Amino acid sequence: MQAARTRGVRPVGCLRRMQPVKIVIVGCGRVGSTLARRMAKEGHQVAVVDENIAAFARLGEDFEGQMVVGSGIDEEVLRRAGIEQADCFASVTNGDNRNIMAAQVAQSIFKVRRVITRIYDPIRAEVYREIGLETMCPTTIGAGILYEFFGSGRNVAASGTLVGDTAGAQG
Amino acid sequence: MQAARTRGVRPVGCLRRMQPVKIVIVGCGRVGSTLARRMAKEGHQVAVVDENIAAFARLGEDFEGQMVVGSGIDEEVLRRAGIEQADCFASVTNGDNRNIMAAQVAQSIFKVRRVITRIYDPIRAEVYREIGLETMCPTTIGAGILYEFFGSGRNVAASGTLVGDTAGAQG
Repeated sequence: MQAARTRGVRPVGCLRRMQPVKIVIVGCGRVGSTLARRMAKEGHQVAVVDENIAAFARLGEDFEGQMVVGSGIDEEVLRRAGIEQADCFASVTNGDNRNIMAAQVAQSIFKVRRVITRIYDPIRAEVYREIGLETMCPTTIGAGILYEFFGSGRNVAASGTLVGDTAGAQG
Repeated sequence: MQAARTRGVRPVGCLRRMQPVKIVIVGCGRVGSTLARRMAKEGHQVAVVDENIAAFARLGEDFEGQMVVGSGIDEEVLRRAGIEQADCFASVTNGDNRNIMAAQVAQSIFKVRRVITRIYDPIRAEVYREIGLETMCPTTIGAGILYEFFGSGRNVAASGTLVGDTAGAQG
């Protein structure tokens, strides 16, 4: 395991060293809330948008960011979340279509500098990436991790191996 | 992007060079079916277990593996899927509890050599990993990828960067 860790992508944690940034996250599910909590704790200005008010419970009582109830593809809702001042944007609802549309609004209309969206469909994730939208496809990543493990016995999903230690986000 | 790829975990593709192995996959959702199609195409002996017969449609008409309708925590169902001869096992249903239990049955009762399970809850994923079960947590991975992108502008989810090119699995 140790060998795998040293071979993997090293933890970066650039945000810890950055000036505080303004971040809008659409979708307060597991991934959205984990990211929001971590970034708010590090002193960044975080706004989370979700249509379902109950989803905000995932943020915990000590969450110091902004919670906005509404649709992430509604420009007025995004404005309320402060998207006009945002440096970073992620759409991570359960719907590929909503995620894509919200990210395109953030990128094209509000000119947010770093925009990324989750797309479960691998083919669409690849197509949108090719046309200039940063995408993350859990299907491709998940199948790739299992395939790698079966082939080499190496579990690159082990904490810290892939993209830095995110376990801290769970505290 | 090119720089990121060379820094990332290099594609391994060990399975292509391996003797054919016997693999049991519990859960024929996006990840399970993607993995099953890829491995069957490469000549491995693949069995997929799912309670919902309609899920097998994801495998496509040209899938040459075995499809078993039933619960992945039922030993008799697993035996029908050939688990007693299996080298590799993955549980990737939508339920953490089912995935954990199926993987523990595969590991402890059937002594499958390479067992891995998907657990959405980051805390449980970490605990089970510590007690000897290989786990993959999409929540930790997803939040980590977004965090890394916001900090460095580098999208490690881009095809081929993380764990080899899995795009081929979509053909």
